[in-house]
Amino acid sequence: MRIEKDALGKLEIPDDVYWGIHTARALKNFPSTGEKIDEEFIRCYGYIKKSAAFLNKKLGFLETKIADAVIQAADELISGSLMKWVVVDPLCGGAGTSINMNINEVIANRATEILGGKLGEYIVHPLDHVNLHQSTNDTFPTAGKMATIALLKQLVENVTNLQDSLQKKEAEYRKMIKPARTQLMDAVPISLGQEFGAMAEAISRDRWRLYKVEERIRMVNLGGTAVGTGIAADRKYVLSIVETLRTVSGIKIAKAENLIDATQNMDVFAEIHGLLKALATNLIKISNDIRLLGSGPGSAIGEIKLPKLQAGSSIMPGKINPVIPEYVVQLSLAVLGHDAIINFAVSSGNLELNAFVPEIIHYTLKSLRFLTIAANSLANYILKIEANPEKMRENLLSSSAILTPLITTYGYDKVQEWIELSSKTGKNLWEIVKDSLGEEAEKFKAKLISNKSTGIGFSHQDFE
Amino acid sequence: MRIEKDALGKLEIPDDVYWGIHTARALKNFPSTGEKIDEEFIRCYGYIKKSAAFLNKKLGFLETKIADAVIQAADELISGSLMKWVVVDPLCGGAGTSINMNINEVIANRATEILGGKLGEYIVHPLDHVNLHQSTNDTFPTAGKMATIALLKQLVENVTNLQDSLQKKEAEYRKMIKPARTQLMDAVPISLGQEFGAMAEAISRDRWRLYKVEERIRMVNLGGTAVGTGIAADRKYVLSIVETLRTVSGIKIAKAENLIDATQNMDVFAEIHGLLKALATNLIKISNDIRLLGSGPGSAIGEIKLPKLQAGSSIMPGKINPVIPEYVVQLSLAVLGHDAIINFAVSSGNLELNAFVPEIIHYTLKSLRFLTIAANSLANYILKIEANPEKMRENLLSSSAILTPLITTYGYDKVQEWIELSSKTGKNLWEIVKDSLGEEAEKFKAKLISNKSTGIGFSHQDFE
Amino acid sequence: MRIEKDALGKLEIPDDVYWGIHTARALKNFPSTGEKIDEEFIRCYGYIKKSAAFLNKKLGFLETKIADAVIQAADELISGSLMKWVVVDPLCGGAGTSINMNINEVIANRATEILGGKLGEYIVHPLDHVNLHQSTNDTFPTAGKMATIALLKQLVENVTNLQDSLQKKEAEYRKMIKPARTQLMDAVPISLGQEFGAMAEAISRDRWRLYKVEERIRMVNLGGTAVGTGIAADRKYVLSIVETLRTVSGIKIAKAENLIDATQNMDVFAEIHGLLKALATNLIKISNDIRLLGSGPGSAIGEIKLPKLQAGSSIMPGKINPVIPEYVVQLSLAVLGHDAIINFAVSSGNLELNAFVPEIIHYTLKSLRFLTIAANSLANYILKIEANPEKMRENLLSSSAILTPLITTYGYDKVQEWIELSSKTGKNLWEIVKDSLGEEAEKFKAKLISNKSTGIGFSHQDFE
Amino acid sequence: MRIEKDALGKLEIPDDVYWGIHTARALKNFPSTGEKIDEEFIRCYGYIKKSAAFLNKKLGFLETKIADAVIQAADELISGSLMKWVVVDPLCGGAGTSINMNINEVIANRATEILGGKLGEYIVHPLDHVNLHQSTNDTFPTAGKMATIALLKQLVENVTNLQDSLQKKEAEYRKMIKPARTQLMDAVPISLGQEFGAMAEAISRDRWRLYKVEERIRMVNLGGTAVGTGIAADRKYVLSIVETLRTVSGIKIAKAENLIDATQNMDVFAEIHGLLKALATNLIKISNDIRLLGSGPGSAIGEIKLPKLQAGSSIMPGKINPVIPEYVVQLSLAVLGHDAIINFAVSSGNLELNAFVPEIIHYTLKSLRFLTIAANSLANYILKIEANPEKMRENLLSSSAILTPLITTYGYDKVQEWIELSSKTGKNLWEIVKDSLGEEAEKFKAKLISNKSTGIGFSHQDFE
Repeated sequence: MRIEKDALGKLEIPDDVYWGIHTARALKNFPSTGEKIDEEFIRCYGYIKKSAAFLNKKLGFLETKIADAVIQAADELISGSLMKWVVVDPLCGGAGTSINMNINEVIANRATEILGGKLGEYIVHPLDHVNLHQSTNDTFPTAGKMATIALLKQLVENVTNLQDSLQKKEAEYRKMIKPARTQLMDAVPISLGQEFGAMAEAISRDRWRLYKVEERIRMVNLGGTAVGTGIAADRKYVLSIVETLRTVSGIKIAKAENLIDATQNMDVFAEIHGLLKALATNLIKISNDIRLLGSGPGSAIGEIKLPKLQAGSSIMPGKINPVIPEYVVQLSLAVLGHDAIINFAVSSGNLELNAFVPEIIHYTLKSLRFLTIAANSLANYILKIEANPEKMRENLLSSSAILTPLITTYGYDKVQEWIELSSKTGKNLWEIVKDSLGEEAEKFKAKLISNKSTGIGFSHQDFE
Repeated sequence: MRIEKDALGKLEIPDDVYWGIHTARALKNFPSTGEKIDEEFIRCYGYIKKSAAFLNKKLGFLETKIADAVIQAADELISGSLMKWVVVDPLCGGAGTSINMNINEVIANRATEILGGKLGEYIVHPLDHVNLHQSTNDTFPTAGKMATIALLKQLVENVTNLQDSLQKKEAEYRKMIKPARTQLMDAVPISLGQEFGAMAEAISRDRWRLYKVEERIRMVNLGGTAVGTGIAADRKYVLSIVETLRTVSGIKIAKAENLIDATQNMDVFAEIHGLLKALATNLIKISNDIRLLGSGPGSAIGEIKLPKLQAGSSIMPGKINPVIPEYVVQLSLAVLGHDAIINFAVSSGNLELNAFVPEIIHYTLKSLRFLTIAANSLANYILKIEANPEKMRENLLSSSAILTPLITTYGYDKVQEWIELSSKTGKNLWEIVKDSLGEEAEKFKAKLISNKSTGIGFSHQDFE
Repeated sequence: MRIEKDALGKLEIPDDVYWGIHTARALKNFPSTGEKIDEEFIRCYGYIKKSAAFLNKKLGFLETKIADAVIQAADELISGSLMKWVVVDPLCGGAGTSINMNINEVIANRATEILGGKLGEYIVHPLDHVNLHQSTNDTFPTAGKMATIALLKQLVENVTNLQDSLQKKEAEYRKMIKPARTQLMDAVPISLGQEFGAMAEAISRDRWRLYKVEERIRMVNLGGTAVGTGIAADRKYVLSIVETLRTVSGIKIAKAENLIDATQNMDVFAEIHGLLKALATNLIKISNDIRLLGSGPGSAIGEIKLPKLQAGSSIMPGKINPVIPEYVVQLSLAVLGHDAIINFAVSSGNLELNAFVPEIIHYTLKSLRFLTIAANSLANYILKIEANPEKMRENLLSSSAILTPLITTYGYDKVQEWIELSSKTGKNLWEIVKDSLGEEAEKFKAKLISNKSTGIGFSHQDFE
Repeated sequence: MRIEKDALGKLEIPDDVYWGIHTARALKNFPSTGEKIDEEFIRCYGYIKKSAAFLNKKLGFLETKIADAVIQAADELISGSLMKWVVVDPLCGGAGTSINMNINEVIANRATEILGGKLGEYIVHPLDHVNLHQSTNDTFPTAGKMATIALLKQLVENVTNLQDSLQKKEAEYRKMIKPARTQLMDAVPISLGQEFGAMAEAISRDRWRLYKVEERIRMVNLGGTAVGTGIAADRKYVLSIVETLRTVSGIKIAKAENLIDATQNMDVFAEIHGLLKALATNLIKISNDIRLLGSGPGSAIGEIKLPKLQAGSSIMPGKINPVIPEYVVQLSLAVLGHDAIINFAVSSGNLELNAFVPEIIHYTLKSLRFLTIAANSLANYILKIEANPEKMRENLLSSSAILTPLITTYGYDKVQEWIELSSKTGKNLWEIVKDSLGEEAEKFKAKLISNKSTGIGFSHQDFE
């Protein structure tokens, strides 16, 4: 055990840990919730520490030796080898101070080691060197925005894959005609490809939205220190640090024009999560549609065959369940729950700071992760779906709504009469139509179940 | 126009209105949101004003003449004839002060009129007489709790009706066997009656919950005045007012033991809305199940026939839509939205008051109204549902899960083999079983589609 | 009473009402929730009916006489004179069918009257003429998107006013120095103007967002009829109707490329409400900050004087409450509740339709109305706020955080020592600093409370 | 590597793992979200497997040797030593099937090992032996309810501690008089003890609620197998299994009367989470009140001294932040987010199953964990709070609301006049009162700031 000390007194710290007394206090103050800090967030914090050391060296505020050690340690954090020493709970109080201090201590200890010192010796000091010209209040939201941008890339990729999968199915099933359903009830014909096409179109909007997320989240408040006035930081540093960070990290951030605003107002997170949740609603709707289309298959819609990914039931042989759509729904519902958390936390800022910024960022990054997994799982799943054309044909002929185009020729009332007669007598609908129209009926039937019936404005003229 | 004046100055008030200057200011400060104060809430406020006048007279704080005029005016408010003069927006700021003042003014003006005075003359004064020994901070939450109890009665009645409807269907369809569906996929047999029975059982839990709502909401803070210390009210008044109010109103309230707590903490509303929302989740689940059971009917499940309540489509003849379940879902979703509002508003109290109590009460009462309508509509709708036994039988025989009980005799793997063979070859499942088991197959089939298969622990012994 | 009839049978309709049998059934099926259809939505529906009549006439599908009567009646609906006959509940089931039919019937009856007929005679028929080539499923979402765009105008105007108010205060209070507070605790100096400036900046982001709302909501599915294939509508009509509507209404809509998608997927509403809710979070944060800054004023922060808009308490004389910020918070919380409703309802679409589109649109428009009122009320309120410079100065000198810039000269530990000594002994902080630094202390004090201390990167060099 | 096989084919499984092919497929199907299955839930699943083996042995369905091995393996799962082999993601699709299978496989492999076999040899079979007479659909919700009850104990303990802490402070500060604040504005006197007392009272309601949670959650559906009909399980087993489980586990569960209902309807989770969230709202309100009371302390309310638990700022020396209340708020906000997830997931059940039951149970248990941590942290924190009587006195005399009791003697208007004069002229309020009343003023002042002013119905008679 080594002894460290701070304004509150002394504390024993295990000899071999890279964190120090502030982290030790945080571990005691904030018992683990089981949540973990997102690694991308820690990585981005590493970029900030590296950039600050770099700029402080350049401006003469840090000795070269110290700065270089900080830079090397920060690089190790970025590459992942120090990651395990960032141990504070992501939902800690203090607006993120303990997380910033945890990272400061890890880098300081590692940099101290690099310079030949021992852990706890602090040749490189967590505050005076690693945190120089910074505050939790500017580094924390900056790291959160950077991590958002970084995680977006993966998400965009997977959402693009999902759109591709859906479009493949759109093309593959373009001519497979089947009944549409509105309010779950038999409706006019549509093709299975058109159904996948509508899903693809919805997801294409999400791609646009994700592009907007990046655009909206890039203004950072680094350099603003405690409240955005940049107090206790040198002006030259304040003016250059964001550009340095952009270069060092390769993440396209920009300096917020009003640092005071950018320090205290977290509405941008409400906004971008509002864009993310639109993706969640689409994923739920698509997943539920796949569940419906594959339902039964014997006793319900059964128009698609669900991929067999695992045994479905320990009791019922042969049961295949839509396990991936269910997984996707659950992840997406969680995102909608995160949305409520973020709404409330963003609204709860007070004056110069939002003390709940750790929660806002934690759940934003979590939503990005969940959506990435969900989109990827669904994309792969869609590709394995197979159509069941026999069931589609059977369903189409069982649906009275297929007669809709006949209303322009025979009138709404006549068609309704046929349908009610069938419903009442139990007699097959097409036999009733045949009784009424004779051989003409067969001609209509052929046209109605043809692919043409799903084209734009299919109507009376199509029978002439 | 008459002139009224308050601490802020003078204002013109139309001659014939029963409200006064405080109301006039509120109308200007809080432009109408379109929301309306619940009438039951106003009625309960009337009981409070009546009770205070009664007790203040008895204790000698109000002259008989004044008190009697207040009591008569309050009675008119309760009976509804003065209702239209309560015009302030239910979401007004000020923790409800403007609503309390609106009611004080209406009663004061009417009481003045009763005593031969003119509107605005205030022989009976809104504050000195009508509001004597009261504060918005004790009257407002008290009226909210009373109105909750009053509206519960109607809700309980309709939820009871809903349970009755479901139980009627349970009895009616007890022996109609059909496939169950888990994860929307074919599962073992069940009877339609058992399905309605499960719904009825869920609703019976809601009845218990509603009983708990009444039990939990009854502790009121009347007498606590501004912060619960009863400041500026006479001790004798403080000690008796709740009992007087209980007698006058017939609503079973009780005095909170800690008036300070009961003035500032609104967690009871979060709690009871948490009970109400459970009903909302049941209504959504039941409504969606009815939508599924009636879906198609040609091209989907179609095991029940939806009542025809209106023409379903301006385009598709013969279309019947599940309009009532959809209506019920929408009302219930709104209740879940109210839940979010109430969670946030209840959490947002500060120190001795929750300034958002008007919103908390408004949305609580609104949920009670919505749920009452929803339960009633659904109860009536359920009764009109008809079974479609042919479709149930057809669905049952199309479902492979019906073979489940055979696994104890033939093993999971054998049964799975039959099912896969059918799925691969398209050959009818029962023919395959027959190929394998010979005449035995028919015997099993008969047993499997018998009502016995849905009894507790139906299994191998049932084939012996 | 007149008699009307539909597929379900006959019904008595009061002689003088403009609605007909479908509306009568809806009134019975959907008991009033107290909610009202937004008038702008009805107006936009009027534009759709007018445009369809216009185009159908042009394409030869409607006789001139009939079409002209429909156009005139639709104009009367748009101008408001027929508004009161649209009576169906906004949360009705049936995906909006009853509302579409209500409007069809009102226009048909009025048009019949115009042509010399009697109500109920239907010289102009609700379906065959007024609804020609339309479906609820394409008209309803289209009207909802148009109404959204129309209501946005007002909202943008009021949000702009709010930004102006805040900027006025920013300029007015630019030099009024006061303590910042992070996590509600004493922090470094800031000016009251900077605080209003940060609020203004946040609101300026909302203006950008509202601009995006309009951009995102404009793709409509009119012409798609039942499921987006345009079935039962003429191709020429399908291809031109949106352009006609844009011209007739002056609202900048465009035809969705994929009508099937635009009919069934409502994610755009989740998206735009996600943008609207960001405004709600800002309004809550700003309102709560004003509540904090004006709190007390004797016993709390009291740095601004709240406008006196009404008497604050029926018990406590002289009490002024932040009634407008409270009102704004309540309206904004309701918007966050609507967000939950919309998330759920958008996710709940099934296959070719989202049956809950009436709820989605109703709460979207309601949020627009609430936010408009809230922004407007807050804008006016902000202008009436007055600063309390004495309290700001007093608070600044009571805050130890003012010493922060001294750490670069004297070190963190020294400054901390002074602060702890003061806290322990109760001795005035500035006397302790004076004991330590002598006359130098006064010089620093003057600089620290100067406006310079809130400039970018205020630091040690400012003391040289 | 060993080879295992199921209905879908063969798969390589690492030699030394205790899980098998179903788990392997699940790991592939459901990439890790980072969430972990609650260990208490796994433990309760262990009790179920143990009980089933015990009862199946007793009824003669399992050989003694096999059953005993299962029992021993289940005991090891319960004691924690096999815990690490339960690796499936808690949000997996399939209604929990993969988690049930993971546990079946771990127990089967361990039991096989106990009987001298090798991993993968399955002398004890996951389905035929470990899962005998069970289904995921009855075991999973049963384990969830049991775990809820188990976790409640800890929560109750900590909530009780919190109430104790608050009551200690109530007693300690009973006579420390200070200004109340309504709508954050100066209000009548109250004691700091009364404030803590109101908090304690609110928390006492939560204790009652937690008691109700246990009462409400105890009806389980074990024995119902796939859909609640108990299909494929022996009747004797169905009738006894819950009693066996109650005995084995010591957790007070009972058999649901309607097993079909208890299998498909999850409203009880919505209900109990509705009770849990009421605690969350109280924790937020209390935490925010502590934040307010400790705010400043120099420049804001500062009536309590916040415990120093860690250095507050890397920039501002001497800063103490309310880190625990902030942590508690964040955990509680997360619970409110879970509430939204549970509302939606519970509502989303379909027919005989709710496919989202893994999510419902996961977030329920998570809320229990979060609330336990939050209550415990807050309880400890409260004890370390110190009062700041000087600031309370100062605040009290700065508040005009202290004059309220004088209105019964001098009238509302007179008192208001004094207050406005002070506000306008800046002259000390008490000097103005003295100008008006002479020496009488001092007498009143003494009474007003006495502890009596916070007693019930403090009023004019107290000056006589």
